[in-house]
Amino acid sequence: MNTALLTDHYELTMLQAALTGGTAHRRAVFEVFARRLPAGRRYGLVAGTGRILDAIENFRFGTRELEFLRDVVDRRTHDFLAGFRFSGDIYGYREGETYFPGSPILVVEGTFAEAVLLETVVLSILNHDCAIASAAGRMTHAAGDRPIIEMGSRRTHEQAAVAAARAAYLCGFGSTSNLMAGLRYGVPTAGTAAHAFTLLHDSERAAFGSQLASLGNGTTLLVDTYDVAEAVRTAVELAGPELGAVRIDSGDLGPVAVEVRNLLDSLGAHRTRIIVTGDLDEFAIAGLASAPVDGYGVGTSLVTGSGAPTANLVYKLVTRDDATGTARPVAKRSVGKPSKGGRKWAYRELRDGTATAELVTLAPAEDAGRPLLTPLVRDGEIVGREPLADARARVRASLTELPPIAHSLSPGDPSIPTIFK
Amino acid sequence: MNTALLTDHYELTMLQAALTGGTAHRRAVFEVFARRLPAGRRYGLVAGTGRILDAIENFRFGTRELEFLRDVVDRRTHDFLAGFRFSGDIYGYREGETYFPGSPILVVEGTFAEAVLLETVVLSILNHDCAIASAAGRMTHAAGDRPIIEMGSRRTHEQAAVAAARAAYLCGFGSTSNLMAGLRYGVPTAGTAAHAFTLLHDSERAAFGSQLASLGNGTTLLVDTYDVAEAVRTAVELAGPELGAVRIDSGDLGPVAVEVRNLLDSLGAHRTRIIVTGDLDEFAIAGLASAPVDGYGVGTSLVTGSGAPTANLVYKLVTRDDATGTARPVAKRSVGKPSKGGRKWAYRELRDGTATAELVTLAPAEDAGRPLLTPLVRDGEIVGREPLADARARVRASLTELPPIAHSLSPGDPSIPTIFK
Repeated sequence: MNTALLTDHYELTMLQAALTGGTAHRRAVFEVFARRLPAGRRYGLVAGTGRILDAIENFRFGTRELEFLRDVVDRRTHDFLAGFRFSGDIYGYREGETYFPGSPILVVEGTFAEAVLLETVVLSILNHDCAIASAAGRMTHAAGDRPIIEMGSRRTHEQAAVAAARAAYLCGFGSTSNLMAGLRYGVPTAGTAAHAFTLLHDSERAAFGSQLASLGNGTTLLVDTYDVAEAVRTAVELAGPELGAVRIDSGDLGPVAVEVRNLLDSLGAHRTRIIVTGDLDEFAIAGLASAPVDGYGVGTSLVTGSGAPTANLVYKLVTRDDATGTARPVAKRSVGKPSKGGRKWAYRELRDGTATAELVTLAPAEDAGRPLLTPLVRDGEIVGREPLADARARVRASLTELPPIAHSLSPGDPSIPTIFK
Repeated sequence: MNTALLTDHYELTMLQAALTGGTAHRRAVFEVFARRLPAGRRYGLVAGTGRILDAIENFRFGTRELEFLRDVVDRRTHDFLAGFRFSGDIYGYREGETYFPGSPILVVEGTFAEAVLLETVVLSILNHDCAIASAAGRMTHAAGDRPIIEMGSRRTHEQAAVAAARAAYLCGFGSTSNLMAGLRYGVPTAGTAAHAFTLLHDSERAAFGSQLASLGNGTTLLVDTYDVAEAVRTAVELAGPELGAVRIDSGDLGPVAVEVRNLLDSLGAHRTRIIVTGDLDEFAIAGLASAPVDGYGVGTSLVTGSGAPTANLVYKLVTRDDATGTARPVAKRSVGKPSKGGRKWAYRELRDGTATAELVTLAPAEDAGRPLLTPLVRDGEIVGREPLADARARVRASLTELPPIAHSLSPGDPSIPTIFK
């Protein structure tokens, strides 16, 4: 899938004007960072880097794109785009790493011409995936050892849904409802039945019977279409105590789960699990911690970033060569939109294994803590791919490393300060 | 682009269980509706129907999908999917039509098997596109005759960005920054330069010079990289009074626009327009109504639905045949999630050209107002395509038809009641 036109018009007019002005091929460094975290959030989680590498690999202006661009840019720019291929270097935070205000989570080095072209697609991917990941991290922490199924596909754009499933799995969700995420990224998929399936049948008993016959007694039966207690009794009567799980999708889930647990136990179905769904977010999950719940399904709040649907990351020019070929740090002075010039390095300072600060420096530092930037692209070649499982394992380490206040769900400041040196 | 796997796992397990139980081929009707509008909203706007028709046309299980599904469903289901093609009927509200709680904006008729498979992708598209459109309608109304450029691509998923640009244009935005939306949907694209372009050059004067030389004096110069007044003076000095526009992206935009207008006028640049951007939403646009602003650029708030990133539309089974082939209305009784059984018709009641109610009936009604459901798919063939321009024209009529309270930006109830008869 060609990604070259997932780009703002002005990237191309800037390129054209820079080619006219003779500045297009100056060496430049752009950085991606967030000026602040979403209100009240204690940390952000990086996701999307792997998708960026795919997008860069497929960033080519083909026949169809070039035909379209004939009316957008001049001849010289058109020729440049026809042969375009990113040939620079990219460094970045690994997927699953936490980030804070000012963390340079991606650093793009190249000519201005080639680095500016990547701005839009890089930001689209990171702003979406980091927003989802940052919400997912809070949810998996709130859920503790209980698994969460991601099931928000229907509440977001159909392709965003696939990326959201990937980001959620990366951040500790156990599975997704989204089949494309299974095919494309190997995320485990899950699901059994909706209310429509029960309503399709002449009775709930008939519906449960069909489902058990087809999917086996280990399946999950949805028990809140009519009367929950009656459904649970029917379910255990038909499946026996081997019934895998029941799902509750409505009502005051805590008390209902207690009733259902008691009923299941009284029917001898001690090992039948209880899955709850229905507009859950990290707060609702935390509120169900003491309820007899064995798993959660989360939809809307995950795919909308639980109140923060975009990570508000920006892509800023921080250094470029001047007319003599000397690198010059640059920064705008626009009111209320601070940014700091100069290419950055970043380190996580730790004390006894616990993070104490995000250190952002203008030169490589020694003994400054764990280095956070790793090579992703070198001379245009992708060198930073890793299996999704590696990123998934990293999230656990990243969250464990943070001070305990990071996991408070009440609004507050970033859990560690960002120190610029 | 094959859309068949943009689907939740449970649609396929329900299909499998229904094939096992002999209920898969019962005639069924599913409806898409919102139980409520986002908090405080006065209306919703339909968008995405055209994209749904594309998605249905491309809803096929190909070799790659079928290979993946070998481990998901049984042999009989797999065979069914291999030959799958939707053969039913779909009716829907036209794009650009307003909707209210309970409006049946899409009605899907077919066998249970074929209609259930479309649930996820249909909801993904409508929930995203209607959320964007509903926010866009408020913004274009607040902007009045002033044009708005959609420029939010970087703040949302890279493909959601394309759909958002389409929905915004449909709802009255004048153009988009997103080039793919230009190629795919013919949306006019626009853009000139970012702060990075100014920072790339050794001086703001050099940057403006390059841009004017390349893009002409009618271009828009970004004037807030360093000092706004100085930038405006330089801009007019270089371009003369033919300078097309200046863009301001930071600061308190109202007072800054007044200063810039005065300065431009004092320099003789009476026709140079002022474009403002920078975290604008419908409230900020309304607040700038009396400022000397000629156009707006809107990004984040548009692509995130201005506080309501999903439309919360659901896809519910409302009628299906019983064992004897008789159609039976159905509805679940889950706590707090009301739905009404039976296939619906919908009409907009009007008095003197102003909408007074959304009438939802269980049978076709005569003289009940403007019918809202039109045929989109008949026997699997797409019959409801229309040019985007037609939908765009409809939005204006739809919004004009609503009572004036609909355009209040303060939170309130839906501007007309939904009456079920």
